[in-house]
Amino acid sequence: MKDLFKNFKVDDPFFNGYEQLVKNVVIPYQEEILHDREDVGEKSQAIGNFELAVKKLESGDIDQEFYGMVFQDSDVAKWLEAAAYSLQLFPDRDLEQRCDELIDLIGRAQWEDGYLNTYFTLKSPDLRWTNLQLAHELYCAGHMMEAAVAYYDVTGKEELLNIMSRMGEHMYDRFITKKAEGYPGHPEVELALLRMYQATGNDHFKILADHFIDVRGVDTKFYDKEREKKDWSPWGNTGPANYEYSQAHQPVREQKDAVGHAVRAVYLYAAMAEAALMNDDEGLKESCKALWKSIENKRMYVTGAIGSAYEGESFTEDYHLPNDTAYGETCAAIGLIFFGRRMLELDINSKYSDVMERALYNSVLPGMQLDGSKFFYVNPLESIPGISGKSVTHKHALPTRPNWFACACCPPNVARLLPSIGRYAWGLKENIVFSHLFVGGVLDIDQGQLGSRENQEVDKGGTIKLESGLPFGHELRYSFEPYGEEMSITLAIRMPYWSENTIIRRDGQVIHPLVKDGYAYIQGGFTKDTILTVDLDLRPKMVYSNSKIASNSNKLALVCGPLVYCAEGVDNKGHVLNLSINKDSVIEKVKSPDFEGVINLKVMGLVRETGGALYSFDQPRERETEINLIPYYTWSNRGLNEMRVWLPYI
Amino acid sequence: MKDLFKNFKVDDPFFNGYEQLVKNVVIPYQEEILHDREDVGEKSQAIGNFELAVKKLESGDIDQEFYGMVFQDSDVAKWLEAAAYSLQLFPDRDLEQRCDELIDLIGRAQWEDGYLNTYFTLKSPDLRWTNLQLAHELYCAGHMMEAAVAYYDVTGKEELLNIMSRMGEHMYDRFITKKAEGYPGHPEVELALLRMYQATGNDHFKILADHFIDVRGVDTKFYDKEREKKDWSPWGNTGPANYEYSQAHQPVREQKDAVGHAVRAVYLYAAMAEAALMNDDEGLKESCKALWKSIENKRMYVTGAIGSAYEGESFTEDYHLPNDTAYGETCAAIGLIFFGRRMLELDINSKYSDVMERALYNSVLPGMQLDGSKFFYVNPLESIPGISGKSVTHKHALPTRPNWFACACCPPNVARLLPSIGRYAWGLKENIVFSHLFVGGVLDIDQGQLGSRENQEVDKGGTIKLESGLPFGHELRYSFEPYGEEMSITLAIRMPYWSENTIIRRDGQVIHPLVKDGYAYIQGGFTKDTILTVDLDLRPKMVYSNSKIASNSNKLALVCGPLVYCAEGVDNKGHVLNLSINKDSVIEKVKSPDFEGVINLKVMGLVRETGGALYSFDQPRERETEINLIPYYTWSNRGLNEMRVWLPYI
Repeated sequence: MKDLFKNFKVDDPFFNGYEQLVKNVVIPYQEEILHDREDVGEKSQAIGNFELAVKKLESGDIDQEFYGMVFQDSDVAKWLEAAAYSLQLFPDRDLEQRCDELIDLIGRAQWEDGYLNTYFTLKSPDLRWTNLQLAHELYCAGHMMEAAVAYYDVTGKEELLNIMSRMGEHMYDRFITKKAEGYPGHPEVELALLRMYQATGNDHFKILADHFIDVRGVDTKFYDKEREKKDWSPWGNTGPANYEYSQAHQPVREQKDAVGHAVRAVYLYAAMAEAALMNDDEGLKESCKALWKSIENKRMYVTGAIGSAYEGESFTEDYHLPNDTAYGETCAAIGLIFFGRRMLELDINSKYSDVMERALYNSVLPGMQLDGSKFFYVNPLESIPGISGKSVTHKHALPTRPNWFACACCPPNVARLLPSIGRYAWGLKENIVFSHLFVGGVLDIDQGQLGSRENQEVDKGGTIKLESGLPFGHELRYSFEPYGEEMSITLAIRMPYWSENTIIRRDGQVIHPLVKDGYAYIQGGFTKDTILTVDLDLRPKMVYSNSKIASNSNKLALVCGPLVYCAEGVDNKGHVLNLSINKDSVIEKVKSPDFEGVINLKVMGLVRETGGALYSFDQPRERETEINLIPYYTWSNRGLNEMRVWLPYI
Repeated sequence: MKDLFKNFKVDDPFFNGYEQLVKNVVIPYQEEILHDREDVGEKSQAIGNFELAVKKLESGDIDQEFYGMVFQDSDVAKWLEAAAYSLQLFPDRDLEQRCDELIDLIGRAQWEDGYLNTYFTLKSPDLRWTNLQLAHELYCAGHMMEAAVAYYDVTGKEELLNIMSRMGEHMYDRFITKKAEGYPGHPEVELALLRMYQATGNDHFKILADHFIDVRGVDTKFYDKEREKKDWSPWGNTGPANYEYSQAHQPVREQKDAVGHAVRAVYLYAAMAEAALMNDDEGLKESCKALWKSIENKRMYVTGAIGSAYEGESFTEDYHLPNDTAYGETCAAIGLIFFGRRMLELDINSKYSDVMERALYNSVLPGMQLDGSKFFYVNPLESIPGISGKSVTHKHALPTRPNWFACACCPPNVARLLPSIGRYAWGLKENIVFSHLFVGGVLDIDQGQLGSRENQEVDKGGTIKLESGLPFGHELRYSFEPYGEEMSITLAIRMPYWSENTIIRRDGQVIHPLVKDGYAYIQGGFTKDTILTVDLDLRPKMVYSNSKIASNSNKLALVCGPLVYCAEGVDNKGHVLNLSINKDSVIEKVKSPDFEGVINLKVMGLVRETGGALYSFDQPRERETEINLIPYYTWSNRGLNEMRVWLPYI
């Protein structure tokens, strides 16, 4: 897929704040944590592990032990990738220098044979590659490869790319040349290897990616055989391997239902879609479509969250979407965006970008405190003080964001998604520019990228400026700065599922372009005077869920544009579990008294008051009441509260 | 407490069937399983373990290993106890002979020092008493003591009582004389020791029971210290002890919230109540009252089920009562009846007997298939085919009853409760006879039991016959056969919480006796001509739950008399998740087309039809519909079905 993140300069009243947060708060804060210079209650030692590994390799001696998860290295990798994207948006010599120094450190932690992983270097060098199921070596390598490609793309500096190429060759030698058996327990390296191939042209990486995809789930005894050979695990005694958990229960081309650990799943599916595209692999495409369908039609929350269960952080069964015990890992929503973006290349259809938008606003953004300092790993759709985060069944579903996690996968994942938003917002296929997500800013497309086979003498490229009112304003405004006379491209704009009566105007005149599979195709010579506006239907709406979702029986959710709303106690006299929405009520928009620029919703309904008894024959006393709702991404920014996305209706 | 089970001969159109089932199906079926003569998919070897233990003790050699749970012996004990009660109702020379033989076998499996436990005898004799937390020695001893007392009470045969007295003395020697530290991980022996004391008068057993109650939770490091001494467990590596799980997190007199494993909890609380009564121990009484309140007011399902979570089979937090993932173990409901029965002695109030009735009809009876052949361990209030029993979050919440369980605690517990129902149905305090549960039959009370201090020359005793229409008929009819002229007792009849306008008639005339704490006290010379009738209000009703119970927001349940109802798919065109009850609808009673004598309910409501999409802006299409409900105790007797107790209302 053509990656436009470098071509896009975000300039958006809504996302500017997030980009600034990532630059000014998230990246420096996470850097301090990785260096253990910030006390957040959880030690990281992620960079310390690299320092120790260097010591060990250079002097043979260490004064401290490896600390952290077996995949602690990936925190460093994701931070580096995030830093690279942020440098693209905000050049920063100091940050870049610190990255260079970190990369230098990483290089010195690499073995002579190309191997790189601080857990094994420090803890058990003799156990390298003996536990693909649980030891995350390929996962860590994958993340560092993604960082390498990103850092090279942005800075042009090759050092990390070379380090990871050596690691890639080491892996190629092992799994291809020497035919070592197996496939990773946590997919990630597949996607990373394809990016390495795109960045370097070294087809070893593509061969290796295809190999890991092809062999996955073919030998459904591999993890057990691996353990028979060498019975150890970084996680203690773990019992027999769960192949569904790792999407290794059948060959990937036979997989139709999204199962197992949700992050593993969508990382794998994204790689499958990428490989299907690169290889024009019909079988793989069909699997990808089926897996997408399984998620979109049966296993996804209205917020775009995926993974219904804490147990295995996993998908469960069709229509099992409990709200208060939802897992909905932030990383899984990010992976779903990765998957959707690639599906758009295979099968252009707004159903993919609609879900990407759903997940971005309602499962990625809520993962971060509005001030950028705290994070949710888990994103429940209902929160009950006294139960959420407390009951043995709800330990995972915290009601407020902690500063950091021992398993710190989510915060740096948010930090690497937001500054690379251009990759997801825009697409390019021959001379069609796709406007998938409506993030304001300027996209710069040159003739070379358009790759038109027609008249090459005139530069058809130029810049497209999108001014977007979303998520609270209803207008999109596209204007153009052609390099030549005009940009003779087709602009394909997503018509979001939530906008019923979308009006498109060209230079003030309503136009009716071809709309196919959710995209409006506007052809034409766009000159510097051309103005395209899209008037979206941003009326708040009530959403109903399939009656097979038991936890949503007789409930509705409110949405407005791309945003899902929720009710919090603080706006509703302390309680929301006792509220029912009148489904015939007018929904009013009101300015948030707490958050600048945010629009809340107000609707009429009932408050039901019961006595103190657990059960009673008395009908609850009912009173009409206003119900106040806030965008779900702003929840839990004002202390501990009852919170509910799906409310009963009358 | 005065135990009236032997005084009561069940004769009740509803319960006769159950008593017959226990006698003809449950006891023989379970006997076959314990002997491994019936293939139910799970081996038992419970009696086989005793045979092996005898072999080992007698010849020093065994040809087979112990099999089953560490508490496998308790299956035999509970079966024996059930058989004893059944023998009381239905003398059966063959069964009694088989019991005698089994008791003989048990006696031969006893060590010379009195110790009895086949797990330790067979597997690790050197580890006796080294893991009170997890190895269930005291638990197994407790159950065998209860069996011993029951068998002695019914048959007058002392062999098992003597065996268990020797075991009791062995324990007394260890824990009292030699002052060994500790208390059981699973309470049960406390209650059993108090029963042994009542049966034998040996005060060692009372001293030991009081001791285990008193030391519990005082040393909240005991289990860990135990493990430091000898690090082994019958359950594999288990991690640090969870003291709340075992109600050992604080001294029992300080415990106010019902926490941890629900069966452990109520077995302990029942023993505490019994000890409080025997010792007139105010501190213990207050704790018992507080613990009861915690359950009744905050942690109990409308069915009387307790234990909200599979994790630890445990209580969770106040108002956390999920329906589809409920645990609600059958054994826990039985234990709650044990607890309630003893609370009635401490604090006569119908709130205890109301809960006992709730649990009996709606959490014990549903534990057994109507034909007596299959059992539920877990009693969810909502069942969703495709999710229940299948999703990783619902593995425990089976939608249909299996034949048997590897952990077979529940089936024999049902079998020992039902034939001893007189113990729970009736009470006696001086000359007041309490009619707690309305199970028909004849209660025989003689002068000696009445223990009146007044005129001893005339026998005030006699028999009380109760004809009860419950659960489907509204009338209770008490008649009398005095030994002398008249029974000059007071009859205290529970006025159930669900009956709004209870009318009491004496010889046809409406009377208005004193009603105090839920009991109507009817004094008087009851002659052979006296007829007391109680006309109960058996109109079906809608129940609403406290708005703090998140899973019941905007829902109601239907009840009729003591029975909680549910809707099953088979009666509602396949689906119930899409139904809402009209709260203003008339509720009709209709005869069950499937089960003889059973009354179903019919109410009007809406069926909501949604399209195939997971989420939609379209309001579900609504159609008025009849909703058919069945008594919850009859659910899952007609195959796999959607089932719901709490339905949304409009």
